[in-house]
Formats: sequence, structure tokens, C-alpha cells
Amino acid sequence: MSHEDRVRASFARQGLMATLGARLVHVAAGAVDLELTFDERLTQQDGYLHAGALTAALDSACGYAALTPMPEDAAVLTVEFKVNLLAPAAGERFLARGRVVRAGRTLTVCRGDAVAVTADEERHVATMTATMMALEPSGGRAG
Amino acid sequence: MSHEDRVRASFARQGLMATLGARLVHVAAGAVDLELTFDERLTQQDGYLHAGALTAALDSACGYAALTPMPEDAAVLTVEFKVNLLAPAAGERFLARGRVVRAGRTLTVCRGDAVAVTADEERHVATMTATMMALEPSGGRAG
Amino acid sequence: MSHEDRVRASFARQGLMATLGARLVHVAAGAVDLELTFDERLTQQDGYLHAGALTAALDSACGYAALTPMPEDAAVLTVEFKVNLLAPAAGERFLARGRVVRAGRTLTVCRGDAVAVTADEERHVATMTATMMALEPSGGRAG
Amino acid sequence: MSHEDRVRASFARQGLMATLGARLVHVAAGAVDLELTFDERLTQQDGYLHAGALTAALDSACGYAALTPMPEDAAVLTVEFKVNLLAPAAGERFLARGRVVRAGRTLTVCRGDAVAVTADEERHVATMTATMMALEPSGGRAG
Repeated sequence: MSHEDRVRASFARQGLMATLGARLVHVAAGAVDLELTFDERLTQQDGYLHAGALTAALDSACGYAALTPMPEDAAVLTVEFKVNLLAPAAGERFLARGRVVRAGRTLTVCRGDAVAVTADEERHVATMTATMMALEPSGGRAG
Repeated sequence: MSHEDRVRASFARQGLMATLGARLVHVAAGAVDLELTFDERLTQQDGYLHAGALTAALDSACGYAALTPMPEDAAVLTVEFKVNLLAPAAGERFLARGRVVRAGRTLTVCRGDAVAVTADEERHVATMTATMMALEPSGGRAG
Repeated sequence: MSHEDRVRASFARQGLMATLGARLVHVAAGAVDLELTFDERLTQQDGYLHAGALTAALDSACGYAALTPMPEDAAVLTVEFKVNLLAPAAGERFLARGRVVRAGRTLTVCRGDAVAVTADEERHVATMTATMMALEPSGGRAG
Repeated sequence: MSHEDRVRASFARQGLMATLGARLVHVAAGAVDLELTFDERLTQQDGYLHAGALTAALDSACGYAALTPMPEDAAVLTVEFKVNLLAPAAGERFLARGRVVRAGRTLTVCRGDAVAVTADEERHVATMTATMMALEPSGGRAG
């Protein structure tokens, strides 16, 4: 299976991504982008996109970016992430871009950036640094 | 309005909390607990609760915990958070507990802990440290 | 070798701990405390202890706390940490307390808390969450 | 005073930077680089540079990068930072580069990257995301 097929198959099993309406829009080696459309079902109290929705998309984008360079039978698990919210998440749609910063045998560090997209511009609304862990092919958890 | 009334009014405006089925189960000074029920709509690829769903609940619990000691016309904004995932989020329901660690005039630091609850036990599945910012009563953003 | 002997032997090899004047004051299973004395050699621009000095002590305290439950030939490596500064680090001495939150086969999550100690009180000045990784006995790096 | 003069004056008051032997090698709007030379006084137990020494340099580089766009009488305080260690800090010298990601009225988010420099190459050894806070000109602390 290609990178993209593996990522698409796993993504399709993430119930939360369907609930959020997230779409996989780009898959390459070490780089995965997801897209979210603004929806009142995803807001915080002031009507902006909830940080939890952005974080879910960034976490999945980073996890799949980390998966791309791994062996075909590998799986990936989030160890931890940190998110800074840079601006209110106001926009029609949002891109969550996950990129591998350093790929290791067990641990992979990724960076994720979320932008709010309107007709005229992209605005940087959140940045994530995440640590992802490869699961052993047996299905055992390394951690 | 009491702490609890203010928190309940704001929580009711969070579209994402309704979408996730989150419930406000405890509100006290500096302490707010939310509850989530396991649902396939909230999963990651292996059938556990998605880290994004847990994070959304922890972020809201921490934000509301931070709001409780603030003046009545204050509002609160998430500056940043970090989450460590400690164990697979397997369980029938999940509690997300937000607690104030240090309340300042502008910034409040909170800790959030998520536990998976089954008939027999509570298992610690995630821990968050979050920085929350008070918004000026005028509605202006301090940051 | 006992936990304490292993920790003391490794601590003695940390050049930075000697440079900072850090002392190992408590070693137990999953819990290690270091102590720093205030010194102008360790300050930031306003005369408080520099966050980097506190972080170094918290990182070592957490790393050694993580090492205590591991096999005798194991070694430990810091994967990542996050520190929130809660109050200016003013005081005569400082305690950095590292505690294991969850010990895994490969990864251990620790919490570290730094307090400033004066004649009358302990003031909580910083809190860390850290991820530590066990190195394979062969000396290979798992990550 | 120019950006550079203000940063140099403050840097000269940081006792820890002198103790670590850190040098200010680049100051521009939103960008500050510090340099450290490898020294056994700065090591962890395996002879690499201690994560605490790298973190201290990254924290100072990020703090001064955040200070550059602020009014002349402003001061800056670290709210929190997160560091991922990407590779063992082996090298003759190390550069810690602080860059502003988003500058706000009260809070500024910075990214810091540390590289180990040898005759042939630069190796990326650590990455930081930091939140810095402007202090009010009166000297009061906003937080």
C-alpha cells in the first residue's frame, strides 16, 4: 500500500474526524494536511472554532505525517503535544498541517500549524509540537 | 450570577461540547469537572477515545476552572496547553478535571487530568498543563 | 547498587549540576529532590534565579526519579519537557522535586515542582511535565 | 537605545549567561542568537551538553527576540516553554536561535532552535516553543 492508501485507510477509521467533518487534503512523505470547515457544532463560547477541534485535527495530521516514513506494518501513537493558540480561530475553513521535524526509530517529533483560510488570506491561528511513538509490528506498545 | 451559573451559561454556548456530548458535572471555586461518554463518533483509528476529544474536554474544564475566581464580567481565553497521554483512553466514560494551580491578574495556570471510568476503577489517561488569560471586561483581548 | 547509589553516581558525572551547585537531597522510588542555593552566578536580568537554572534542576530531578524503577543497567534520556513559571524565583534556596506520574517500559512521564524556600515559607515557583525514555542496556538509544 | 543596545545591556545582567559562557552573536528585530561553547562544566552524565544549559540559552534567546519589538521601557518575562530534545547535544559549539512567531500586546510566542555546530555541519538538537509576557513600564507584572 502506498503512504497515501495507508493513511486514508486509518483516517477512515477515526470516528472523531468524521464527526468534525475533517478531510484529508494532502499526504506526502513526512507531510499531511487536514481541512475543517467552520461549523457551529465545533465552536467555543464566543463562536470561534474550539481549540479542541483544531487540536484534534493537528494531532491527526501530525500522527499521519509521522506514520508515512515508517514500515508498512507500523502504527503510531501520540505521546504528547503542546499547542499555542496564536489568534482567534475565525474563518470559513481551517487547514491543519502536520510535518515531521525528526524521525527516529521509536519516537518522531512533528510540528503542526493551523491556519484559518478566508477569500483573501491565510491567518496562522495555532502551532503544535508533538511527540509520536511507533508501535511494534506485533501490535505491542513500546511505551 | 454564581460561579456555577456563569460557567453553565458559557458552557451551553460551546457547540463542540454538545457535539461531543460533554456534560458539566462539578463546578466549584478553581475546580470544574466535565464528563464524556464513550461513543464511536469520538474515536481514533484503534477504537479508543481520540486525544482530541479528551483535550477538548480538558481545555474547557481548565478554562472554566480559571474563570471561577475572576470578576463577574471577565472572560477567559486559552493561551496554550500541553497534554501527555498516559494510557489508551479505553472506558465507558471519562472525567476531565480542571484545577487552578496559580491564579494571577492576567494569567492563570491550570492542571487538567482525565480518567477513564469503568465499573471497578478510575484509570489516569491524560494530564494537561494549561495557561489561561483573562480578557478585559471591555471585551478587549489582553494578548 | 541501590537506587540511591546509582543516582548519586550518575549525578556526580553531571558537570552542570556542580556548576550550578545543585545537591541531591532525597532519593526514593519514583521521587528525587535536588536543592539549589541562590547565587548571583545563576540569575536572570532582574536578579531572580534564571528559569534555565530551575529547569536544569527540574530536568535532572525528573530524570533520576524516572531512573529509580528501571533495571540496574538502564539509563535514561530526556525526550521533552514543559515548564510553567508561576512566580519570580526569589529565595535563599530552591527545591526541585521530580516525581514519576506513569512509568512505562520505554517512556516514563514525570512531574517536577520547584519551590523557593525562605525562613517562613515555601513558594511554588515552577512546574514541569517531562517525558523520559529508557535506553536499552546495550547502550543503544531507543529513540 | 537601539534594539541591540537594550538587549546587550540586559544580557550583561544575566549572571547565568556569564556562568554558562553564553555570547550574544546576533540581534535583529524579532531574532536573537546566542552561542555556547562545549565545556565539561555544562554536561549531563554521558558527557553531552545538559538539556538545562541548552534550555537556558534558548529561553534567553527567545526572551530577547520577544523584547525587540516592544516599547523602549518594556521588559519581558517568561510565562512558559516547552523543549523537545531531538538528538544528543554533541558538538564544539551550539547556537540557540530565538525567533518571534506572533507578537501581541501582552503575550509574544517565540520559537527557539538549538543546533550543534562542528567543522562540517549544523545538527538540529532541540526545539522550543515559548510564551513571553510584556511587563508594564511601571515595572508592575501583568500576570
